[in-house]
Amino acid sequence: MDARSYIEAGRDGFVETLSRWLAIPSISADPAHHGDVRRSAEWLAGHLRTTGFPVVEVWETPGLPAVFAEWPAADPDAPTVVVYGHHDVQPVDPVEAWDTDPFTPTVVGDRLVGRGSSDDKGQVLFHTLGLRANLAASGADAPPVTVKLLVEGEEESGSPHFADLLARHRDRLDCDVVVVSDTTMWAADVPSMCVGMRGLTDCQIDVYGPGTDLHSGSFGGAVPNPARALAALLAGMHDADGRVAVPGFYDDVVEISPGEREAIARLPFDEAEWLRTANSAAAVGEAGYSTLERVWVRPTAEVNGMWGGHTGAGGKTIVPRSAHAKVSFRLVPDQEPLRIQERVRRYVLDNLPDGLRAEIGFGGPGVRPCASDLESAGVRAAREAMARAFGSEVLYTREGGSGPEADIADVLGAPLVFVAVGLNSDRIHAPNEKVEIPLLLKGAESVAYLWDAYATALRG
Amino acid sequence: MDARSYIEAGRDGFVETLSRWLAIPSISADPAHHGDVRRSAEWLAGHLRTTGFPVVEVWETPGLPAVFAEWPAADPDAPTVVVYGHHDVQPVDPVEAWDTDPFTPTVVGDRLVGRGSSDDKGQVLFHTLGLRANLAASGADAPPVTVKLLVEGEEESGSPHFADLLARHRDRLDCDVVVVSDTTMWAADVPSMCVGMRGLTDCQIDVYGPGTDLHSGSFGGAVPNPARALAALLAGMHDADGRVAVPGFYDDVVEISPGEREAIARLPFDEAEWLRTANSAAAVGEAGYSTLERVWVRPTAEVNGMWGGHTGAGGKTIVPRSAHAKVSFRLVPDQEPLRIQERVRRYVLDNLPDGLRAEIGFGGPGVRPCASDLESAGVRAAREAMARAFGSEVLYTREGGSGPEADIADVLGAPLVFVAVGLNSDRIHAPNEKVEIPLLLKGAESVAYLWDAYATALRG
Ligand SMILES: [Zn+2]
Ligand SMILES: [Zn+2]
Repeated sequence: MDARSYIEAGRDGFVETLSRWLAIPSISADPAHHGDVRRSAEWLAGHLRTTGFPVVEVWETPGLPAVFAEWPAADPDAPTVVVYGHHDVQPVDPVEAWDTDPFTPTVVGDRLVGRGSSDDKGQVLFHTLGLRANLAASGADAPPVTVKLLVEGEEESGSPHFADLLARHRDRLDCDVVVVSDTTMWAADVPSMCVGMRGLTDCQIDVYGPGTDLHSGSFGGAVPNPARALAALLAGMHDADGRVAVPGFYDDVVEISPGEREAIARLPFDEAEWLRTANSAAAVGEAGYSTLERVWVRPTAEVNGMWGGHTGAGGKTIVPRSAHAKVSFRLVPDQEPLRIQERVRRYVLDNLPDGLRAEIGFGGPGVRPCASDLESAGVRAAREAMARAFGSEVLYTREGGSGPEADIADVLGAPLVFVAVGLNSDRIHAPNEKVEIPLLLKGAESVAYLWDAYATALRG
Repeated sequence: MDARSYIEAGRDGFVETLSRWLAIPSISADPAHHGDVRRSAEWLAGHLRTTGFPVVEVWETPGLPAVFAEWPAADPDAPTVVVYGHHDVQPVDPVEAWDTDPFTPTVVGDRLVGRGSSDDKGQVLFHTLGLRANLAASGADAPPVTVKLLVEGEEESGSPHFADLLARHRDRLDCDVVVVSDTTMWAADVPSMCVGMRGLTDCQIDVYGPGTDLHSGSFGGAVPNPARALAALLAGMHDADGRVAVPGFYDDVVEISPGEREAIARLPFDEAEWLRTANSAAAVGEAGYSTLERVWVRPTAEVNGMWGGHTGAGGKTIVPRSAHAKVSFRLVPDQEPLRIQERVRRYVLDNLPDGLRAEIGFGGPGVRPCASDLESAGVRAAREAMARAFGSEVLYTREGGSGPEADIADVLGAPLVFVAVGLNSDRIHAPNEKVEIPLLLKGAESVAYLWDAYATALRG
């Protein structure tokens, strides 16, 4: 039986199995649901054993557990794949905004509605269906590549223990490629592959002036005003072309390749619709780049918040004693968060007027950006496998936000390939999350083909 | 008996009388003390009758009452002087910081400690002593000029009904000069005359961007950020020389005269001491002006406060939907608050990036700046009268802050002359307010001489 037929025949069972998993409210951000996250891990471990994985383990962390499973290829020289996903889900507030109970999965036509259906349980589960389809098609009792699954339980809480987990189990996770199934495609009829994610670092800048708020009648005009100085620091972070003006900020930025640029331009992007979604009156940003390029392949500096001095009703004619801002930087390959932090720190200190003092605190080490090499064997084979499953060309996208993906690639020393079938319309992190069942089946079919392709393409 | 002897002989009685008035807690900002403000007005009216004023009236307002008194000169062609002061006082919080009860006036050596001793009851009261000294010296039973007193009851609450009061009684207040006794001298041993006060207008600027806070991963870099735009607007309000860069801002500014500049430079100003008072690490401001010039004769723009986006703990990677700032402008002659408001509004709207919306709200019509003409007969005679009383040269100062003085001059169509003997060390508006009794006596002596001088100098 070919993979597609196997998968189509297994549709009802797949939906039923996924629904059982979705009924477990594994909200990692809510301590009241931490028992459910553990139940979710146990459920997944059981399912993976049923699927046929000879090795299935629940990996504890100081927080919530991950699930690891391994199914070795028959050929000891076959390549190894690590599949990354997560089994925890977002909170459901405001629960009154849901049309159905978030943990009572409901089929509506081709859709399955429920928290986690798209992010990320549905996308984890297409892997077990895909692997069974691969075996059904080959008639073998082991996959053509060694398949390792690593399914995290704290992704929606910022993966606080994930880097440690990777390091501790480094040897068990040895692999040739990391396949990440936790992103989206452009549209149901425009299959695409994510090939990069922006990184992030964020800071708080505190500028201190006079020891107390001063009366602006007596002192205004003759002492430095920290709010004015902070405004100048924030304003000076961009030049007239919308580029970030922190010296050295672009030193390590890899320019988008002509091939990727061309692929992005071919996406059916409707800027008016995008502006409606953003609820913004204009699309503006760095000169020389399109809107999609600005949010995907270009780094940014954003003022997330600022405060200082009198912020209540009415006027208060003071020179405030201090002013504060939160600023975050989206990063692209090969920017390193720690190097950017040093450059931002230097920019602030070098541009601070006399008589003021500044402190800059960064919110941790930041998140590194990641990208796939479009010319690599791993990406090309995956793109072909998806194209075969979907029956159409696969374009490239990126994501503007960040997850733990760069850490996985870094610790395991293997390239990232994103194979995922979520949609931006899936309402992940919002009420009425859903997934398109036919897309999950295409995801399963994609990996059924992909393991065969990787068996040759990734052979050393 | 000459004026000085009369005043020295009357010292004890003066202190006793002033102490009775200071015992009335006439705090206009506190509704619980509004009855006391009325008692204060009645007390003053009684005292003025005792002094000999043939006309004494309590003038009601929709708020708290003012006191008016008039003592006509014998000569119907003699000039007329309006003396301005106020009988309400500042609140006393924190009351535990006072060494003595704020409304139990206490003599400590040459000082009288109590709320209102310097600001402004002591300075109002030296006028009755001075007027009696003038009569004692001349032997006449009417002053050489018509003396009108206007003593407000809401000055410490922003004089909300004062402009109306002036307009309503415009005819009764007809005069040739307005003598204001509510300011300070440079120091006890450096007598000086205030010759100007800065005006003020203040606004709130609201910048609106996307309809909601946006995730900076998905949208950052491609939509306008209102916090960044506001920072640029605020930063752009000054140029590299510390001048206000709002177009047209300086159009009506009268440059300081060489004579006043020279007089200011002769004041024994200790910048290190001033910085300690300001608790600031540097004195900075408009290029080409000294610190005293910056706070007295130059206009400013100050960011009083700002806020927007995420201001809580930790990071939140958003493009905020809005950002806000409070900005105030100190004004100097001949800047008009309403014209400055129009220029600020135009600056904000002309410099707002695409896709953002701004609102600018001004806190009322603002306060007009005022200044005396140093070459006028009114100022020259007053300076000479003070010099005679103090036995030393009188220098010029200004005040960086603002009161209702410009309105008085404007409505009455008469020039302002400041004759006052407060000190910056009097702790007005703070705990342990005090006044130097010998300076009040010098104030009385100054006006005793001044009325004689005005009788000739101001004759039309
Ligand atoms: Zn996810
Ligand atoms: Zn006062």
